[in-house]
Amino acid sequence: MTVVDRLVAALGDAVSTDAAALAVTQADKSGHRSLSAPLAVVSARSIADVQETMRIATATGTPVVTRGAGTGLAGASIASGGEIVLSTLAMDRVLEINEADQLAVIEPGILNGAFNGILAGHGFWFAPDPASKAISTVGGNIATNAGGLLCAKYGVTRDAVLGLKVVLADGRLLDLGHRSVKGVTGFDLTALMVGSEGLLGVIVEATVRIRRAVPGTIATVAAYFPTVTDAAAAAAAITAAGIQPAVMELMDSASLAAVASLLGLANTAPGEAHLVVQTDGAAASEEADAALAVIRSLGGRADLSIDPVEGERLLAVRRAMHPAMEALGTTLIEDVSVPRTALPAMFAEIVRIEQLYGIRIPTVAHAGDGNLHPNFIFEGPDVPDHIWQAADDLFSTALRLGGTLTGEHGIGILKKRWLGQELGEDQLELQRQIKKVFDPQGILNPGKVF
Amino acid sequence: MTVVDRLVAALGDAVSTDAAALAVTQADKSGHRSLSAPLAVVSARSIADVQETMRIATATGTPVVTRGAGTGLAGASIASGGEIVLSTLAMDRVLEINEADQLAVIEPGILNGAFNGILAGHGFWFAPDPASKAISTVGGNIATNAGGLLCAKYGVTRDAVLGLKVVLADGRLLDLGHRSVKGVTGFDLTALMVGSEGLLGVIVEATVRIRRAVPGTIATVAAYFPTVTDAAAAAAAITAAGIQPAVMELMDSASLAAVASLLGLANTAPGEAHLVVQTDGAAASEEADAALAVIRSLGGRADLSIDPVEGERLLAVRRAMHPAMEALGTTLIEDVSVPRTALPAMFAEIVRIEQLYGIRIPTVAHAGDGNLHPNFIFEGPDVPDHIWQAADDLFSTALRLGGTLTGEHGIGILKKRWLGQELGEDQLELQRQIKKVFDPQGILNPGKVF
Repeated sequence: MTVVDRLVAALGDAVSTDAAALAVTQADKSGHRSLSAPLAVVSARSIADVQETMRIATATGTPVVTRGAGTGLAGASIASGGEIVLSTLAMDRVLEINEADQLAVIEPGILNGAFNGILAGHGFWFAPDPASKAISTVGGNIATNAGGLLCAKYGVTRDAVLGLKVVLADGRLLDLGHRSVKGVTGFDLTALMVGSEGLLGVIVEATVRIRRAVPGTIATVAAYFPTVTDAAAAAAAITAAGIQPAVMELMDSASLAAVASLLGLANTAPGEAHLVVQTDGAAASEEADAALAVIRSLGGRADLSIDPVEGERLLAVRRAMHPAMEALGTTLIEDVSVPRTALPAMFAEIVRIEQLYGIRIPTVAHAGDGNLHPNFIFEGPDVPDHIWQAADDLFSTALRLGGTLTGEHGIGILKKRWLGQELGEDQLELQRQIKKVFDPQGILNPGKVF
Repeated sequence: MTVVDRLVAALGDAVSTDAAALAVTQADKSGHRSLSAPLAVVSARSIADVQETMRIATATGTPVVTRGAGTGLAGASIASGGEIVLSTLAMDRVLEINEADQLAVIEPGILNGAFNGILAGHGFWFAPDPASKAISTVGGNIATNAGGLLCAKYGVTRDAVLGLKVVLADGRLLDLGHRSVKGVTGFDLTALMVGSEGLLGVIVEATVRIRRAVPGTIATVAAYFPTVTDAAAAAAAITAAGIQPAVMELMDSASLAAVASLLGLANTAPGEAHLVVQTDGAAASEEADAALAVIRSLGGRADLSIDPVEGERLLAVRRAMHPAMEALGTTLIEDVSVPRTALPAMFAEIVRIEQLYGIRIPTVAHAGDGNLHPNFIFEGPDVPDHIWQAADDLFSTALRLGGTLTGEHGIGILKKRWLGQELGEDQLELQRQIKKVFDPQGILNPGKVF
């Protein structure tokens, strides 16, 4: 009996070999596409389905790619020939919302935005907020330790995960972590699983911290500066002034120009850069006033609003970044992260790389936490060599400035070749051995990360 | 050449075999004491000293117990015959304070209180605040993932650690994590190391998040209730009202009576329980007023102060807990943690256990996060059998209520026998294998945790 026959015998119509369904799993949002279709897609409806799939995979030595909504930007959930795709997208229930304990228990397939929509009805929210939140699953957010716009103030995904149920490569079910705020029993395998990109196990349930809706207003300041250096200096000065923005996003001139063209903006001049700041909580207005003063003292022109509708309008420029990039051509979105103080230096280095390789690299940064998304734009489906060389230069530069290859997207297949440069051979070998502890046969997402 | 000869040849007067120095390392603050003295104490002055010690330990197969200030409450840093004690207490420098990047780089031996004293001069603080902060090292806080009074609002130690330098069992130096707020390159070995109780490596340097001093006032509400159930209900109602206290501490009647006796308090009645709440930040006064209203509506009598000196006086009852316990006899301090909503049930179970075993178990709780410290009091140095039986009942009860064996003290030697009950055999085996990846010879803190 073939692997697919065994899957069908065990799981019936949860198994699909439909060509269109298979083709979807050959790509994610990274722009990459595998060369051949996987064997089958299993749409798990329950933990038991996941366990059965993994038991068959282990018995037959078949590789498994776990996949949620396929919105990853590093290629970690791209499947190829000979592999089983294990989709947890249909496992999308909220199993519990416990307001008193400020936690929720969810299945991995629920979309971040949908989960937040449900929580809003209870006066709560889930802090991890990747830009993809409308279309990405919470399970995927956990598997990549997703970041987003609010991390400097509200933490990364890891900080919001209390416990996980995980199916191991051989189908056994593990129950990791706890429901209490504190817990130090044994090594922190919950934290190890967060960001593990499908290499250690399949996340089938999560107990997550939820936060009470922040009382008070949200204030938005949208500013324009003559150069990106000025904007970066203002971002640094806002932090140095003791202001803690919820959101602080910086767009360089190439990004702003692309958005201005897409939206038909009339109020920006060539070369200008954009900084948008949101403050929240009891001191939102005072903090926004203080940020406005800093911005104006450093040569920015800016508007401030405490009206939610007007605030959304002010954020619209930033939100149009991704569509604006897509309008320019094929995009390779990078994700380096540096210490906040290295932001101006990193922007200067990006200018150097643009000039060296004769390309434009529109860049947006989560300025509050030092995470940059340089967008390499090119024609056609394949990344040209000179773009890879420029990306290589970019990664080496970020490491030299005390940063990392990836702040929130993960390694996947895109950044494998630079992994050793950041971790060093000793740590890389430890990581490979940890992988082997969880997955001795090497059937979980092979060829990714390492 | 003996192991000690080799250590002396390599490290000179960093090595001590003085009987008094060895005897100190046979105990910590758990009340336990090992039966025999270790071989030697190495007081490392540098990373190179730690590496040299580990190389000798590996070459000779000698067990190593890493130790800071020896304030642990679970016996994890207690040394015995045949072992080398590797003290990092003398490695106590602050290597960098970077206000703009909101991080500091420190050696492991610096005391938490001393570190916070230095940071205060810069207008910053380090959030992890175990009750032992005046006497415990930051390295020890990291090795146990220490909690404290502020965790519900400001997180646990893991949330404050960005990166670590770690010496492996064979002397190699690893550089884990990053200086940026975000970073998802490979598995999160930094988080795995936090709370690993000396089993995976020796922490020799840490890059930690520091926070800007919270602006605004600190408001303190000290309340007395007729019963501990009333006090627990008030704590739950304060959280349910959307108030986020920085500190919320609950003392049962046996605890309050012991403190009243020690301090000669005149204002408490028999059977009364104590709840003390502190709020901070821009909304501190409003939140304290709201907490006071909740407390009074539930039958508590309470005082509120926004004066820092008066606030400290109101906290004095809670701060006298440990001395009051020491005055009663030998104390076995336990550390179960349950979901917030299970606090009243856990207090009721403690009353049941008191009656069943004919003992008193004065209990204090970090009510904001559900972490309880039941104090088992007895005469003499050894824990009597009926106390162990009562503790066993306590742990099983905490697990049944959805909690954990240990919220912040760790497993050490005290809770080894219950580890499997919480983790299950599959997870326990994975943890043992991870230990083996880092320490194939099993020389790092053998006999602890597993």
